Amino acid sequence: MSKSHTWSQDFKITKADRALKKQQQPMCIWFTGLSGSGKSTLIDALEVYLHKKHYHTYVLDGDNLRNGLCDDLSFSNKDRDENLRRAGEVARLMVDAGLIVLAGFISPTLEQRTKIRGLFHKNEFIEVYVSTALEVCEQRDTKGLYAKARAGEIKDFSGVNSVFEVPTCPEIIIDTKTASIEQSILELIAQLKL
Amino acid sequence: MSKSHTWSQDFKITKADRALKKQQQPMCIWFTGLSGSGKSTLIDALEVYLHKKHYHTYVLDGDNLRNGLCDDLSFSNKDRDENLRRAGEVARLMVDAGLIVLAGFISPTLEQRTKIRGLFHKNEFIEVYVSTALEVCEQRDTKGLYAKARAGEIKDFSGVNSVFEVPTCPEIIIDTKTASIEQSILELIAQLKL
Repeated sequence: MSKSHTWSQDFKITKADRALKKQQQPMCIWFTGLSGSGKSTLIDALEVYLHKKHYHTYVLDGDNLRNGLCDDLSFSNKDRDENLRRAGEVARLMVDAGLIVLAGFISPTLEQRTKIRGLFHKNEFIEVYVSTALEVCEQRDTKGLYAKARAGEIKDFSGVNSVFEVPTCPEIIIDTKTASIEQSILELIAQLKL
Repeated sequence: MSKSHTWSQDFKITKADRALKKQQQPMCIWFTGLSGSGKSTLIDALEVYLHKKHYHTYVLDGDNLRNGLCDDLSFSNKDRDENLRRAGEVARLMVDAGLIVLAGFISPTLEQRTKIRGLFHKNEFIEVYVSTALEVCEQRDTKGLYAKARAGEIKDFSGVNSVFEVPTCPEIIIDTKTASIEQSILELIAQLKL
């Protein structure tokens, strides 16, 4: 049975129907940045804010993907690519379902992020680069991962022994070093124009 | 970097928060049955009904998965297993997001369906067996797939040259042969108790 045997069945309820009912513009807000840069903290605070405003959101991150959909994948570069591809595809389905998706992934390369952006319509994808410097992230090291990476216990750790390519055209840039978390959130919300 | 480096971060907005806001019980309604049994027709009609009642639904099926998340998979038995595993995991994420997921997959084996059921809490998973007999499905053959399978052009086609194991304990059984589509829908809605 080849792929030519799939076909597109038109269901009657569309993304537009769901968006209209929810009175929100479905979109994917994709947070990229080093480990420890503050992605999860920002996402958490943004979700609380959006929930209070009656938006319907969902968070996608390494936790809920690695423990289920992607639990067949290792942390090799190839499998990390596949992890991100699946994250992007799930985000796309959820945007199609009418949700505002908050996705937090280091997503270290331009190619990975460009591919993911390509899954969405222009007004449905917002890239937020959490630009906190490596030195700051490493100093925080709340999860102890930088220490392990420096000790050689973790391979391919972005910023230490693997590349992190700085985003060239993110919609929003947030540096959690130069502002408090409250200021960062306010700035993020202002720029999102929600 | 081994899997032990993932950890569970507690975001503040939970499934219960989303369900409360949406005033609906998130769940996965999983339709199993032969090709041509009427799964998509039932799902389509049910979604229109639920949308009118202000429920927030989403349809998962071979179309929207095979053209994105699962476009790396073939139709070998192994890849069909993986396709269903991913379908189940995406449904789980969407139920976690507060949605009522209508999933339509032949899902021919008891083992596949049991694994998927195991991803959900007891009250979050409803298996609908669309029990329309093979003869009826084959006579309809709206997609011409049975003819191709009989001609040997499609391998592993459930009911023809691959097993379809009849569900042993589905919550709901619908036979689209013995009732009109309108009657089938009404019966389905009545049994769902939504």
